[in-house]
Amino acid sequence: MTLDDLLNNTGEWIRCTGPACDIVMSSRVRLARNLANYPFSHWASKKEQETVLWTSKESILSLKKLKDSLFVEIGKLDSIDKQFLVERHLMSKEHMIDAENKGLSVGQDEVISIMINEEDHLRMQVMKSGFNLKEAWQIINDIDAELGNSLDFAYSMDFGYLTACPTNTGTGMRASVMLHLPSLVMTKQIGKVLQAITKLSLTARGLYGEGTEASGNFFQISNQVSLGHKEDDIIDNIDRIIKQIVDHEQSARETLLAQNREALEDRIWRAYGTLKSAHIITSTETIDLLSLARLGVDLGVIKQADRTLINELFVITQPAHLQKLEKKKLSPNQRDVKRAEIIREKLGKQ
Amino acid sequence: MTLDDLLNNTGEWIRCTGPACDIVMSSRVRLARNLANYPFSHWASKKEQETVLWTSKESILSLKKLKDSLFVEIGKLDSIDKQFLVERHLMSKEHMIDAENKGLSVGQDEVISIMINEEDHLRMQVMKSGFNLKEAWQIINDIDAELGNSLDFAYSMDFGYLTACPTNTGTGMRASVMLHLPSLVMTKQIGKVLQAITKLSLTARGLYGEGTEASGNFFQISNQVSLGHKEDDIIDNIDRIIKQIVDHEQSARETLLAQNREALEDRIWRAYGTLKSAHIITSTETIDLLSLARLGVDLGVIKQADRTLINELFVITQPAHLQKLEKKKLSPNQRDVKRAEIIREKLGKQ
Repeated sequence: MTLDDLLNNTGEWIRCTGPACDIVMSSRVRLARNLANYPFSHWASKKEQETVLWTSKESILSLKKLKDSLFVEIGKLDSIDKQFLVERHLMSKEHMIDAENKGLSVGQDEVISIMINEEDHLRMQVMKSGFNLKEAWQIINDIDAELGNSLDFAYSMDFGYLTACPTNTGTGMRASVMLHLPSLVMTKQIGKVLQAITKLSLTARGLYGEGTEASGNFFQISNQVSLGHKEDDIIDNIDRIIKQIVDHEQSARETLLAQNREALEDRIWRAYGTLKSAHIITSTETIDLLSLARLGVDLGVIKQADRTLINELFVITQPAHLQKLEKKKLSPNQRDVKRAEIIREKLGKQ
Repeated sequence: MTLDDLLNNTGEWIRCTGPACDIVMSSRVRLARNLANYPFSHWASKKEQETVLWTSKESILSLKKLKDSLFVEIGKLDSIDKQFLVERHLMSKEHMIDAENKGLSVGQDEVISIMINEEDHLRMQVMKSGFNLKEAWQIINDIDAELGNSLDFAYSMDFGYLTACPTNTGTGMRASVMLHLPSLVMTKQIGKVLQAITKLSLTARGLYGEGTEASGNFFQISNQVSLGHKEDDIIDNIDRIIKQIVDHEQSARETLLAQNREALEDRIWRAYGTLKSAHIITSTETIDLLSLARLGVDLGVIKQADRTLINELFVITQPAHLQKLEKKKLSPNQRDVKRAEIIREKLGKQ
């Protein structure tokens, strides 16, 4: 598998095959691990980083599930390819910076991805379509166990897994779901929901994790605490809370339809019409309009498109994706034109 | 011909058959005439008004050109029918009020219309598609002469035709054109143009004449002075000035296309997309979007619609038209839904 193959092979989450994938775009579990006897990435010498990279790579590629995976050295990628991987949620923004000796492995369907020499030596992620944290946890738990056979992870009997940042110490786990909550936003209930989440030791972030604003009515919700709780308990806790939010969004949708169907349909169709018509469109407007179009598909208002297509449009209309599709660097204005062209083309085929 | 036939028979100007009808929607010439020996309408007794109405009706219907015309007594119409005639530019708003003894005659293709007992006993109008004041003037001049054979018009050797309001005295003529000037508006040149017009003794008004705001980039331009000039000179003068404005709009369109084609096409397509998609739409938004769609058709950007269709949509999406099409009274909200439905249906057929 090469990096460019990702452009044609849509990730599993894009195909919207998982449970409740109308509201829950994807479920992710991430584990932070470090090799014993080596300083954390930021404190390690180039030589040490290099050893961590090649040692980890060997172990990763020997895993059955990652045998035919993509492996890239981030330092060898141009800025568009790096951005492209961030846009696909396969690596963090931080992983783009000071890229020497950083690596990334991506498995089939983009379900498994492992960053090497990010903040921690290993940051493993499993991303599944829909509301499916438990399966994601099982997969990543298996990988963790297998890797633990060949790699010696830094572990303390007192604290658990040791990590570069103390907030990750313990399980080293972060579980998160990407929720699409347009109706809670429209009915102005989202504020209360987010407040409640914080009280339950969860955090809400935007589309690209820490430090990003919520846009397109997407909220990434994850656990804040990784120490002092068992992994299963953390997963159970977040699972239970997310279920409530999903139910809440569902009933907000029903309320909107019952009380204000015409106005809602008008907003949805106008968004869809603009997507099908615009010749210049920014990424911000695209996300907002696709959010409404996705709601339209969920509600059965729009029948000419499906969730897979809308999800795909969310992904491929991002700046680096556009430039890879066009096979050249594009200015922001050129991207706005290309973005509109691709959206028209994809929606026009329906 | 009945009043409801107008709903199906589009007026000549709607079919956009006249010269320069891309920029000049229609040309109109109006003559004010009063019967000698009767007080002006507002000062006349009911009995006198009645005599004026029936005397005029007889003369009008004996004209060859108005033989099969529609004749309605305004006082017998409900408020929707009255508004409907105003929306079609066949009579003035003022003609709706205190409607007893008021009449209206409308000829084939809505080219000729004559109000009886408006401010003046007779207000005759000829409206032609495109930039065609001279033909409009010829037609109305013939009608005036023919009517003068059977009716005794109030005329003074010193002042010319006498009218209820002194601003109309003399020729009793007002010539006007309805211009669509989106590019002069977009390039912010319209202010200067309108200033220049005023200096040349012309007035600019909105879609429905005196006291209405310009909307949808439509400007109705007419002569201010009717006294002390020959009719032909007034027509020549306005004709010459309008020609310059038309050229100006034309070159503004070319400039916009040359300098900013992508942004212009984007605006046009978005407007068209919204028209094709909206499920609730106000008349103000409709006019603005149709204005852009019309520009799109003029520029060859939109090929799926033609000017006739866009002109028709301008007309039939008006409140009274919607209610006549639906055959019942509609609330403003219901009209916004019906309007969107009709637009989608008409544009969807293309």
